[in-house]
Amino acid sequence: MDSVKEQPALYNIVKNKILDQIKAGKFKVGDKLPTEMELCEEYSVSRTTVRIALQQLALEGRIHRIQGKGTFVSKPKIQTSLSTTEKGFASQLIEQGYKPKTDILDLRVIPADQTLAIHLQINEDDPVTRLTRIRYANDEPLFYSISYIPWKFAPGLVNDEEGCKSSLFQLLQEKYNVEVHKTIETIEPILANETVSEYLGISEGSPVFSLETVTYNEDLKPIEFSDSVFRGDRSKFTIERFYTALDI
Amino acid sequence: MDSVKEQPALYNIVKNKILDQIKAGKFKVGDKLPTEMELCEEYSVSRTTVRIALQQLALEGRIHRIQGKGTFVSKPKIQTSLSTTEKGFASQLIEQGYKPKTDILDLRVIPADQTLAIHLQINEDDPVTRLTRIRYANDEPLFYSISYIPWKFAPGLVNDEEGCKSSLFQLLQEKYNVEVHKTIETIEPILANETVSEYLGISEGSPVFSLETVTYNEDLKPIEFSDSVFRGDRSKFTIERFYTALDI
Repeated sequence: MDSVKEQPALYNIVKNKILDQIKAGKFKVGDKLPTEMELCEEYSVSRTTVRIALQQLALEGRIHRIQGKGTFVSKPKIQTSLSTTEKGFASQLIEQGYKPKTDILDLRVIPADQTLAIHLQINEDDPVTRLTRIRYANDEPLFYSISYIPWKFAPGLVNDEEGCKSSLFQLLQEKYNVEVHKTIETIEPILANETVSEYLGISEGSPVFSLETVTYNEDLKPIEFSDSVFRGDRSKFTIERFYTALDI
Repeated sequence: MDSVKEQPALYNIVKNKILDQIKAGKFKVGDKLPTEMELCEEYSVSRTTVRIALQQLALEGRIHRIQGKGTFVSKPKIQTSLSTTEKGFASQLIEQGYKPKTDILDLRVIPADQTLAIHLQINEDDPVTRLTRIRYANDEPLFYSISYIPWKFAPGLVNDEEGCKSSLFQLLQEKYNVEVHKTIETIEPILANETVSEYLGISEGSPVFSLETVTYNEDLKPIEFSDSVFRGDRSKFTIERFYTALDI
């Protein structure tokens, strides 16, 4: 055993106790939590400790405050499956009882810069369609994404704003005859910056997912590169994996 | 198009320009970045703006400061594949040229609380082996994890500290005859709290991954529940997905 200090910070103990009670169903979605003063008494800690615990739970999307009314347990996070055989984003939302919606913020053709040229295996200054979208679950913004599609794979895509409102993969496949063969996604946890926090309606510095995706056609040529930021307080990713003795 | 403000914050522009230069290889791993003053001049922005940009890049693990020497480009993040057919954690590290290491912080039997009873489909107060570990890549801590294994699946596991230093799945399989059939992982971005930041050697409030895993045997009974926190500045997750027309 190592001699690392094992006593967690007080606010963390309080945070975890409240979280456990939410997970165990003692506090249900929409329930009002005890007041700060009541929590101070219950856990024999200072008001500052209770405040930090509640702030962190709020940033992580477990609870929310309503001005003048108190602190309430938030809805469960929206689940996005990243497993191989799963359905597209819209179908996953519908299955969870949400209505998907897409806002197109910008759709234009730009010259590839060095980074795009590398990701998309094209030359610098080659034309690329850039599509900037916000996707919603009901009327709640869930993620912000910028997709880059080389002009050559989908000429004229820039004029198809309506088509870009639903599945881009479906549009590429049905209208431009581009077969989507595989994606490689890279997930990193980052902090929401000003732009993202404004678009997604969250506080600057909230924990969010950055999801970079490269999509390949059957010849393993990149047909799309995209950069998305998912709200961490409202979404979680799940992955189902099957094992054979060899994997372990 | 919506009328949302599209001008990103200045620090964000500076941050992205530096990040693009790192990604494009203009600044390589270990290279020294220009000084704060030089960056102020290059981008015609204030020192505060440059500082925020550099702070965020540091928190996200792209750069690091060495006292009295300057700011340097960090090593690339360690990649953990979450795709179905991929190898275990240790093999993935070795493939990337890192030496895996495990520290056991604690190994003991505890009574199941309500949350554990639900996750593991056992009764409250049933005995559960709790294994707390830190896993390293070379000598750098990468993640902190707590695994809970119902006593009935691996009686005496609490006395096998040596075995717990390598693959838990392998140990369960080879010594306790427990077949690992599938896992369901849930990933959320959170902020490092005091305990985690201390164990992983990162700043409190750094963006980290929380990874909750439930592991099932062939009868689809939970044989392990684990709660891990991965450093966001040093690790990223990748997922490879294949598509058929039906998925999209």
